[in-house]
Amino acid sequence: MKRTLIIDMSKNEGKEVFIKGWVHTRRDHGKLIFLDVRDRSALLQAVVNPQVSQVAYDAAKNLKPQYAIEAKGMVKKRPEGAVNKELPTGTIELEVSSLVVLSCASELPFDMGGKSLNLQLPTLLDSRSLTLRHDAIRPIFKVQEALMEGFRRAAQKLGCTEVFVPTISASSTEGGAEVFRFPYYKHEAFLIQSPQLYKQIMVGVFERVYVVSHVYRAEPSVTTRHLTESIQLDLEIGFIDGLNDLLDAMEGMYKSMIFYAQDTCKQELKILGVAPSVIPDTIPRLTLREAQKIICNRTGIDHTNELDLYSEDEKALGAWAKEKHGSDLVTVTHFPTKKRAFYSMPDPKNPEYSLSYDLLYKGVEIASGAQRISDHKELVEAIEKRGLDPQHFDMYLQAFTYGLPPHGGFSFGLERTTMKLLNLANVREASLFPRDMERVDKRLSSGS
Amino acid sequence: MKRTLIIDMSKNEGKEVFIKGWVHTRRDHGKLIFLDVRDRSALLQAVVNPQVSQVAYDAAKNLKPQYAIEAKGMVKKRPEGAVNKELPTGTIELEVSSLVVLSCASELPFDMGGKSLNLQLPTLLDSRSLTLRHDAIRPIFKVQEALMEGFRRAAQKLGCTEVFVPTISASSTEGGAEVFRFPYYKHEAFLIQSPQLYKQIMVGVFERVYVVSHVYRAEPSVTTRHLTESIQLDLEIGFIDGLNDLLDAMEGMYKSMIFYAQDTCKQELKILGVAPSVIPDTIPRLTLREAQKIICNRTGIDHTNELDLYSEDEKALGAWAKEKHGSDLVTVTHFPTKKRAFYSMPDPKNPEYSLSYDLLYKGVEIASGAQRISDHKELVEAIEKRGLDPQHFDMYLQAFTYGLPPHGGFSFGLERTTMKLLNLANVREASLFPRDMERVDKRLSSGS
Repeated sequence: MKRTLIIDMSKNEGKEVFIKGWVHTRRDHGKLIFLDVRDRSALLQAVVNPQVSQVAYDAAKNLKPQYAIEAKGMVKKRPEGAVNKELPTGTIELEVSSLVVLSCASELPFDMGGKSLNLQLPTLLDSRSLTLRHDAIRPIFKVQEALMEGFRRAAQKLGCTEVFVPTISASSTEGGAEVFRFPYYKHEAFLIQSPQLYKQIMVGVFERVYVVSHVYRAEPSVTTRHLTESIQLDLEIGFIDGLNDLLDAMEGMYKSMIFYAQDTCKQELKILGVAPSVIPDTIPRLTLREAQKIICNRTGIDHTNELDLYSEDEKALGAWAKEKHGSDLVTVTHFPTKKRAFYSMPDPKNPEYSLSYDLLYKGVEIASGAQRISDHKELVEAIEKRGLDPQHFDMYLQAFTYGLPPHGGFSFGLERTTMKLLNLANVREASLFPRDMERVDKRLSSGS
Repeated sequence: MKRTLIIDMSKNEGKEVFIKGWVHTRRDHGKLIFLDVRDRSALLQAVVNPQVSQVAYDAAKNLKPQYAIEAKGMVKKRPEGAVNKELPTGTIELEVSSLVVLSCASELPFDMGGKSLNLQLPTLLDSRSLTLRHDAIRPIFKVQEALMEGFRRAAQKLGCTEVFVPTISASSTEGGAEVFRFPYYKHEAFLIQSPQLYKQIMVGVFERVYVVSHVYRAEPSVTTRHLTESIQLDLEIGFIDGLNDLLDAMEGMYKSMIFYAQDTCKQELKILGVAPSVIPDTIPRLTLREAQKIICNRTGIDHTNELDLYSEDEKALGAWAKEKHGSDLVTVTHFPTKKRAFYSMPDPKNPEYSLSYDLLYKGVEIASGAQRISDHKELVEAIEKRGLDPQHFDMYLQAFTYGLPPHGGFSFGLERTTMKLLNLANVREASLFPRDMERVDKRLSSGS
């Protein structure tokens, strides 16, 4: 008999069906056993009645949460008082006629049947293979999947080609101590902190590209916002007319992603208690200096000479954007050139500032980018000015000797975007198997 | 004025347009300069006539291949004798009225205007940022992109959730010397050789998952088929009824990918001289022992007691499948248990052989998979039997204590699939920036 997915159950009222799934909960009510059974599509109530099948009933008596089972039975309308409007299958139930255990489960270390888990993060991660199955955790990663799909669709709509670039690098391009290095045959290699240089090279080939890459950073401390390995979404566009082309692309991309997730994950967002994001057609855009003035007016604290926004500044600006423009998003441009990566283009009108930008979402920086230097000579000078060695950038610089048009782009982290969209407290909650200095699946011993 | 993509040029006959792109070739014919201009969409012939614009003509005299330019002009019908049926824009040309250089290019080290490059692989890779732009190389990566998109679409159709799993691991799970290890704070970490264990864990969460992951292998030698970093596509399905479910999924997936690439990259495949793959509705399936008998009959060489297929065996079997079944694909099942990874399920009917399988494409193994052991105790025993330490598999084994249903899956390499589809001689040609023991972008010095 062919398996029917639980989500299709209500179409089969009055028919016999064959289902597979996990026991979510079991409740014994007098002479009946009620099972909630979950498969990848939905949750179903099954009733095991010894008068229908004593054999199935005897089997059901031994069932515990997380057992994998298959069952046959008749799809019946629920009695009126028993209808559950919360569930897509809430008007029907399965009257079980046979039941087979496919795989047993040990006693659970905590209750998985409730609406939330209420566990500390370390416990949540220690039992990751189990906690990921919880109704309040699984949906996080359906939303994450949707954000990724939304990104790809929007990138394809922009005419971008998807490219696959390496994560092993011969030099630590952006410098800094926060890089993982490892023996590579008789040499040393590095894990990339960003696919930046490769995506710029690829502008010379496809004009417009997008990259999904793992990026690595040996964070020197444990914070709620950083992982040592995370997933970065990158986009780069050539033949731009100016900064506004890039801002349009970044803001449009972000809107598309969020709207795609909100459209395709209604049920998940409801479970997670997340209200839809408020995003107007026009996202407010400010230069850093304009933003700092607004922040100063709101908070009374003068940061108008600082080189960047502090996190409390971002928060204040986010509140301003929401109040004044009804927008969860706000774009800040023209950060000081010396605060940005060497490849960011200085503003020709005032080279102290760069044609760079950050996108803030709910008061937190979420995406970052810039128009890039596209002239070879200027780029070599910018590298040298930072005390870096142009020889370490051979292949990258080579691309600039063969006609790279004006270009720019942006990037953002998938986990951090998921975290902000879902109002999670810690970025680890938005990573299936988060890595940090204290954990790689298991907690690392603090000793040796 | 808004930019028009070159592919949309013929719709604009008689109109003025604004284009951007790279100079592909320049030919001076008496008083006219002919430019082939390429953008991300197509190639266009532009004519610069001093009688139309002396300024544009003077600018055009200095153009060299790979200059990035923008130009305005009138779209005109080509004279009848000048129509080029090979090009989608072959019936029209652009009469240039103005021309601006956006970015210059150095003298090219070799001719980029021909139909093929005829360079040795090391030269091809030394100038990667340039050679990737060539008309016979760029399309390789459009086909690669299509294979990936075809994979995702087919996986989504199967009901799989896309999951993102880490590449940093705490233990070298599958053993062997071919693993990259690196200092991770005060500990040691490893780069994964496969996302296998994570995708199995995720079966417990989403039933059906797919993963796109970078995988790493410290190959001890340089071959035409191996990279140290490559892109692996993985799929895993839970609640299967048996081996055939998995074979159907694997073969169906591969067919979908190839057909998607063939449907969406007609022009690219034409340029690359690749004939469509021949794939019947039913792919031939043989056990290893059946396959070896067929091979012995064809070649006269008896490998019927060998534990695996040799590459000449794969070739012979590929030829057989093509002749007898009109198929570029053939599936081989039931490899000896001891030749496969510990998690492969032994055949209950004869545990010496496993419920494992390879897919051969044009006489080369291209995908590989198995039904997995889903019982916790059996799995621990299988790990111990290989001399591995179950403690290194904590998080993986944990998933099996909470009811993992019967499951299995398969994986394949994106680069190798691209290589075989396009009949490339070396897998490096199917990687934008290939890594091996001799090269990470630049050739590694053979010394220190």
